[in-house]
Amino acid sequence: ATRLLTERDKSKVSKETDALSLLYCERLCFLSDCIARVQRFLVTRLGEDWIFLVLLGITMALVSWTMDYASAKSLQAYKWIHGELRGNIPLQYLAWVSYPLIFILFSSLFCHLVSPQAIGSGIPELKTILRGVVLKEYLTLKAFVAKVIGLTAALGSGMPVGKEGPFVHIASICAAVLSRFMSFFSGVYQVNILTVGCAVGVGCCFGTPLGGVLFSIEVTSTYFAVRNYWRGYFAATFSAFIFRVLSVFNKDAVTITALFRTNFRMDFPFDLQELPAFAIIGISCGFLGAFFVYLNRHVVLFMRRPNAMTRFLTKHRLLFPAVVTLVIATLTFPPGFGQFMAGELMPRECINSLFDNFTWTKISGSPPPVGLGRSAAWLHPDVSVFIILLLFLLMKFWMSAVATTMPIPSGAFMPVFILGAAFGRLVGEIMATLFPHGIVFDGILYRIIPGGYAVIGAAALTGAVTHTVSTAVICFELTGQISHILPMMVAVILANMVAQGLQPSLYDSIIQVKKLPYLPELGFGHMSQYNIFVEDIMVTKVNFISSQSTYREVKLLLDSSSLKSIPLVDSKESMILLGSIDRLELLALCDWWLSPERRLLMQVRSTVLSAGIQLDLLTSSCRLQGSPVQEERNGPLPPPKPQEPSSNHTAPVPGELRGLHNSEYIFMTLNCCQPAHLCNLASYLLLQIKAWEEAEMDKPMEIDEIRVDPSPFQLVERTSLHKTHTLFSLLGLSHAYVTSIGKLVGVVALKEVRNLISA
Amino acid sequence: ATRLLTERDKSKVSKETDALSLLYCERLCFLSDCIARVQRFLVTRLGEDWIFLVLLGITMALVSWTMDYASAKSLQAYKWIHGELRGNIPLQYLAWVSYPLIFILFSSLFCHLVSPQAIGSGIPELKTILRGVVLKEYLTLKAFVAKVIGLTAALGSGMPVGKEGPFVHIASICAAVLSRFMSFFSGVYQVNILTVGCAVGVGCCFGTPLGGVLFSIEVTSTYFAVRNYWRGYFAATFSAFIFRVLSVFNKDAVTITALFRTNFRMDFPFDLQELPAFAIIGISCGFLGAFFVYLNRHVVLFMRRPNAMTRFLTKHRLLFPAVVTLVIATLTFPPGFGQFMAGELMPRECINSLFDNFTWTKISGSPPPVGLGRSAAWLHPDVSVFIILLLFLLMKFWMSAVATTMPIPSGAFMPVFILGAAFGRLVGEIMATLFPHGIVFDGILYRIIPGGYAVIGAAALTGAVTHTVSTAVICFELTGQISHILPMMVAVILANMVAQGLQPSLYDSIIQVKKLPYLPELGFGHMSQYNIFVEDIMVTKVNFISSQSTYREVKLLLDSSSLKSIPLVDSKESMILLGSIDRLELLALCDWWLSPERRLLMQVRSTVLSAGIQLDLLTSSCRLQGSPVQEERNGPLPPPKPQEPSSNHTAPVPGELRGLHNSEYIFMTLNCCQPAHLCNLASYLLLQIKAWEEAEMDKPMEIDEIRVDPSPFQLVERTSLHKTHTLFSLLGLSHAYVTSIGKLVGVVALKEVRNLISA
Repeated sequence: ATRLLTERDKSKVSKETDALSLLYCERLCFLSDCIARVQRFLVTRLGEDWIFLVLLGITMALVSWTMDYASAKSLQAYKWIHGELRGNIPLQYLAWVSYPLIFILFSSLFCHLVSPQAIGSGIPELKTILRGVVLKEYLTLKAFVAKVIGLTAALGSGMPVGKEGPFVHIASICAAVLSRFMSFFSGVYQVNILTVGCAVGVGCCFGTPLGGVLFSIEVTSTYFAVRNYWRGYFAATFSAFIFRVLSVFNKDAVTITALFRTNFRMDFPFDLQELPAFAIIGISCGFLGAFFVYLNRHVVLFMRRPNAMTRFLTKHRLLFPAVVTLVIATLTFPPGFGQFMAGELMPRECINSLFDNFTWTKISGSPPPVGLGRSAAWLHPDVSVFIILLLFLLMKFWMSAVATTMPIPSGAFMPVFILGAAFGRLVGEIMATLFPHGIVFDGILYRIIPGGYAVIGAAALTGAVTHTVSTAVICFELTGQISHILPMMVAVILANMVAQGLQPSLYDSIIQVKKLPYLPELGFGHMSQYNIFVEDIMVTKVNFISSQSTYREVKLLLDSSSLKSIPLVDSKESMILLGSIDRLELLALCDWWLSPERRLLMQVRSTVLSAGIQLDLLTSSCRLQGSPVQEERNGPLPPPKPQEPSSNHTAPVPGELRGLHNSEYIFMTLNCCQPAHLCNLASYLLLQIKAWEEAEMDKPMEIDEIRVDPSPFQLVERTSLHKTHTLFSLLGLSHAYVTSIGKLVGVVALKEVRNLISA
Repeated sequence: ATRLLTERDKSKVSKETDALSLLYCERLCFLSDCIARVQRFLVTRLGEDWIFLVLLGITMALVSWTMDYASAKSLQAYKWIHGELRGNIPLQYLAWVSYPLIFILFSSLFCHLVSPQAIGSGIPELKTILRGVVLKEYLTLKAFVAKVIGLTAALGSGMPVGKEGPFVHIASICAAVLSRFMSFFSGVYQVNILTVGCAVGVGCCFGTPLGGVLFSIEVTSTYFAVRNYWRGYFAATFSAFIFRVLSVFNKDAVTITALFRTNFRMDFPFDLQELPAFAIIGISCGFLGAFFVYLNRHVVLFMRRPNAMTRFLTKHRLLFPAVVTLVIATLTFPPGFGQFMAGELMPRECINSLFDNFTWTKISGSPPPVGLGRSAAWLHPDVSVFIILLLFLLMKFWMSAVATTMPIPSGAFMPVFILGAAFGRLVGEIMATLFPHGIVFDGILYRIIPGGYAVIGAAALTGAVTHTVSTAVICFELTGQISHILPMMVAVILANMVAQGLQPSLYDSIIQVKKLPYLPELGFGHMSQYNIFVEDIMVTKVNFISSQSTYREVKLLLDSSSLKSIPLVDSKESMILLGSIDRLELLALCDWWLSPERRLLMQVRSTVLSAGIQLDLLTSSCRLQGSPVQEERNGPLPPPKPQEPSSNHTAPVPGELRGLHNSEYIFMTLNCCQPAHLCNLASYLLLQIKAWEEAEMDKPMEIDEIRVDPSPFQLVERTSLHKTHTLFSLLGLSHAYVTSIGKLVGVVALKEVRNLISA
C-alpha cells in the first residue's frame, strides 16, 4: 500500500489537476481506512498461537529447502568440475581437494567473525537452555545468520557433516526471534517455544514431523509439557508439508513422498528367522555408537589439551579445519584410494544407494542391471563388495568423528546415519551370501533384502549415538516404509541399552566437555536421594538484605557477589524471609539514590525550605544571574534530556562532574561564572558531593520503591534430595531458599545439587 | 524343583534303600543350595526395572492375544450358526438376535456382580488417577478379572463396541498389580507405572507400540515425565512384538505384519490435487466427531435423568442392554434391513473391507473380481454403493453412540474408527466417480484409491472424538503404510481443530458427566490467569492446630472436618506455619491419649508414686488379692495382647467397660469381687473414667510424639492463577497453604482452582 501511495504521489506531482487530486484524496482516505483496519486485525490476530506456529513452519520450511537447494547445486558443481577434468589426474586432484577446502574455510571464518556460538551442533546448548539456564548469544539473529550460511557452505563441501543438529538450533533461534517479534503485536512474549522449535527443526530438516515431535520430547530431557505436543505436531507437520510441496514444485519429486524412499516388498518384509541378525545389528551398533562418542570426545579433549601444538592451532584457527579437510578429501579422491571406499558418493547419494533394492553380492560379477544408478560406485571390478563396505565403514568412522569437531556448524546425525546404513548393509550382504537362496517359509522362497538391514542399521546406530529411540520413527518417515517396524524398534532398543551402559550420549558428552550448567538425571539406583536432605547441602552463609539495610550495605553486597536475586528478610534478628529482589532493581535503586538528578532535587528542596542559604554560599565565589528554581515534581523524574554543552567556558570539566551538565540548574550556575573561578568551584563542589554521597549512603533503603518478588521458591531443611531434584528440574529453578518456620536459614543453588549428583 | 522333590520323595518311600537315600540327600542339599541361589538371584534382580517391563509386556500380550482369539472364535461360531440356518428365516433371526443378547447380558451381569468399576472405557478414570486423585477399587485384581471376561464377551457378541479403551484400563491395572507384587522382592513400590501401563495397553491392543507411547503422552494430560517415555517404548514394543509373534505361531499371519495391512501403490500414493478432498474429510470429521460426543453425552444424561422410565430401568439393570442389543441386532439382520448396510460384517471385517484396494463404484455392475472377499457385502445388486455406505454411516453412528453407553466394558475407539473409515470411503468413491479416469500428472494417469481415503477418514474421526493426534500414528501402524503421512496428519489436525472448538473430547465429556475430580486445562486465551491471584480464591477460614491446642480442640476439629492433613501453626497469635500433620496421625494420637492402656499406665504410675492411695479406695468395696504392680516401661507401649475374658463372673459388662478387659490390673480387681458389688463398682469406675477423660482432654497436645510434615506446599497471596494451576497440575497437589511472611493466612484446594477455571 505504501508503494502504491508513492506512485500516486508521483503521478499527482506530474499532472497537477484538481480533479485527480480530489480523487486521490478520496482514495487516500479509503486506503488509510483500510490500512487501519488491517492493522487492527493484525494486532488482534497475530497474537494467536496458530499464526505463530504457521509462520514458524513456513519460515523454517523455506530455510530448509533453500539450504538443501543451494548445497545440492554446490555438490553438483563439484562433481561437474571433477567430471570435466577427467583424464588430467593432478588437476582433478587439485579441484577435488580445493573445492571443499574453500567452502570449509569460508564457513569457519564466517562463523568466527559473525557469531562463534554458531559453531557445532547446538543441541547440547539447547538442552541446557531448555533446562532453564540462560546462555547468552545463543538465540540471536546473528547466530541464526552465521549458522544458516555456515551450514550451507559446510553441506555444499561434501564433507561428512550433518544438517539435523544445527537445524534444530536454527529452528529454535527462529522460534525465539519470531516470538519476540510477535510480542510487539500481542504484548505476550511466549515462553516454552523452544520445544516447538526443536520439533520444527527436525520436522523440516528431512520432512519427518512425527520424528520431530518425538525428538523434541527426548531432548527436553525431564518433564515435557503435553501442551507443547500438540503445538509441535502442528508446526512440524505444516513445516514438513511445505518443505515437501516445495520440492514437488521444483520437480524434484512427482508428489509428496519420503526423502529417501525405499521400495521393499511389503507382503513379506522379513522372516522371523532373520530376527537374530537384526538383534546382532542392534547390539553391535550399541558398541559402535559408544565407541563413536568416545572417539569424538577424545578428539575434542586432545584439541583442548594445552601443549605446543594446540597453542599453535588456536593461534591459527583455520589450520585445523584445513588439515582435516585436506586429509579427508585426499583419501576420498575417486581415482585414488577413493575407488575402494565409494569416495565419489556424496552423503545423500550414499544413503540412497545403501537403501536400494539390489543384492550387491549377486550382481558384482555380472554387468550392472538397469536402474542400479549411483550404487555402481560400490562395485569394484577387482575388489569384493565386503572389502569396500568394510573400508568405507572404517575410514568414514574416524572421518566423521573428526569432521564433526571442526569449528563449523555441523551435526553428527547424518554421518552416523550413513555409517549405520553401511554397517547394516554389510550384515545384510553377509546374510545374503550365507543364505543365497533366501529363506523358505511355507514352501515359498523369500529372498533376503540387504537394503532392509541397512535401514535397521542406520536407525540403530543413530539411536545408540544420540541415546534416543525416536530415530526409528525418523527412519520410517525418511524411507516411507513402516513394514520393518518391530525388528527396527527391537534393534534400536538393544542398541540403546548397550550404548547407555557404556557411554553418555553424544550431546551429554559435549555438555560435559564444554562444562555447560546442566542438571543430570538422578539414577534409579541412587537410593541416597532419600537419605540426603537439603540441610546437608545448603549454603548457610546467605547474602541477604533486611528492611533496615543501608545503601552502603546494599552496594557492598552487590559489589561483593554476583547473585541474580537477593533475599529480603524482615530484620537481621528475626530473619523472616519476605521475598527476593532482582539484582537489577537494586542496582537501579542505588544508582538513582546517588544520581546527580536526585541530588539536585534534594538540593532544590532544601533551597526552597531554607530560603537560599545554600545559594548564598555559591554567590560568594561568583555572581548569580537569575536562578530559575525548578518546580518540585511529584512522582518519578522523567529521564533527563541530554543537552549540548555551551562553548563559552573553556575550563576542563573533571570526569566526576560530567553528570552535572545534565541539569539546568548547575549548568546555569556554571554558565555565569568566570573561567578563573571555575577550578575552585569544581573542587569545592566535588567535595560537597562526596560528603553528600557519604551521608546518603548511610540512610536505610527505601524498600517500598522497588519490586519485591513475594514468592521465591522455598524448601525446608528436611526436604529430600529426591524432591529437591524433582522440583529443580520440573520448575527449572536456579536456586531455592531454605526456610525454617519462616526464617531464612540457607540457600541451595543448582551448583550444589549438580555437584552432589555427579559426585 | 519342588515337583522334583516330591517325586523323589515318593520314590524314596517305595524303595527304602540306604544308598538311594544317601544319593537323595546329596541331591537334596545340592537342590536346596540351588534354590537358595535362585531365590537370592530373583530377589536382587526382580527389583530391576526392565524385568518389570518385560513381565508387563508378556502378560498383556498374552491377555490381548487370548482375548482376540476367544472373541474371534465366538464370532466364527456366530456366523456358522447363521450360515447353517440359511433358508429358515425365523430361526435364523432368533439365532442372530439371541446370540449377542446372551453375551451382552452375561457381560453386564458379570461386571455388575464382580466389579462395577469395570464398566465403561476406563480412560476417563485413568486420566483422573494420573492427575493424582485416588479412585478406590479401580486398580484391583477384581476389576481386572471383570474387565477381561466382560470385554471378551462383549467383543464376542459382534456389537459395535471397542477394545482399546478398556484395554488401556486393563494394562494399567496389570501394571499396578504387578508393581505391588514386585515390591515384595525389591521393597521398592514403583510409582508412575500407570503411564507405562497406558502405553502397553494401546501397544498390544492392535500391535501399535509407537501409537501406544504417544497416546500415553496425550492421556497424561499436563506434564509427561520423559523417563517414562523410554520405559513405555520398551514395554510397548516388547508387548506388541510378542502379540504379533503369537499370531505368527498360530498361523494367522505368515510373518510379523500390520493388523489391517493395506496394499496401496507406493510410487505415487496420491496427487497434490487430491489434497482439498483430504482437507474436506478432515473438517467434516471434526464436525462428525463433535456430534458423536454430543450424542453420546446426551444418551448418558437422558438415562440419568430421574423419571419413571429411568427408575424402572435402574431397577431392572439388564433391561437397557437387552433392549439396545435387540434393536441393533434386529436392524443388522442380514436377510432383513442388514442387507442395505452390510450388516453381516463383523467390526474387523468392516475395516479390512473398507481399506481394500478396489474401487467399488467401478465393479458394482460387473461380476466380482478375484480377491474381493468380504467386501462383496457392500455390493447390493439393486442398490447403489453410495446409498449402502450412507445408510451404514447413519445407522452405525447412533448405534455406536448408544452401544458404548451400555453397562459393559466397552470402548468407542473401534466403532468410531469404522465410522471414519466408512465416511472416508464414501468421499473416496465420490471422488472416483467425479474423476473416473483418475488424475493426470506428467502425462501419466493415476487412479484414485478410495481405500486411502478410508484410512484418512478413520484417523481423522478417531482424532476428532478423542482430541488426540496420535490416532494418525496408530493408523500407520495398523495399516503398515506410511505413504499417506502428510495428508493424514493434515486431516487429523484439521479435525482436531474443529472438534476442539465445538465439544470436549469423549473422555473429558465422560469425566464431566461422571463428575470425576479432574483439573481441566487452562485455555490459551484465558488471560485472567495472570490477573487472578491466590488471595482472590483462597479460603481464609482455615482449620488449624497450634502447638498449644488441647486434645479437646483437636478432637473437635477432626470430628467437624474431613481434611486429610491439618496445618500446624506456632501459636494462635503468631500463626507461623510449622508444617502439616496427617489426619491419621492425629486420630491415633487422640485414641492413644484416651485409651484404657494409657489410663492404666498413668494410674499405675500414680499408684507407685502415691503409695497405694488409689488402691485403698478400691479395697473398701472389695477384698484385694495380690496386686501385681506393672513395671514402668520406657518408650512406647507394645500393642496390648487381647485376652480371653474368664467365665467365672456373670454380671453384664457395660459397653464402656469393654476396654477394661484388656488390662491385667483391672481384670484382677474385678476377678476378686463379688457379683453383688459389681454394679456399684462399674458405675463408680465409669464415672471415674469419665472424669479422667475430661481432665485429660484439656491437656495440651504432645506434638513431639507425632510425625509432622515440615514442608507442606506453600503459596503466597500474590501467586497468580497461572502459576497455581501449573504447580497443582505439575506436582499433583490436592491443596496448598497460603502464607504471608511465614504466617498461615489461607488455604487453596483443588476444588477452588477447578471451580474458577470451569466458571
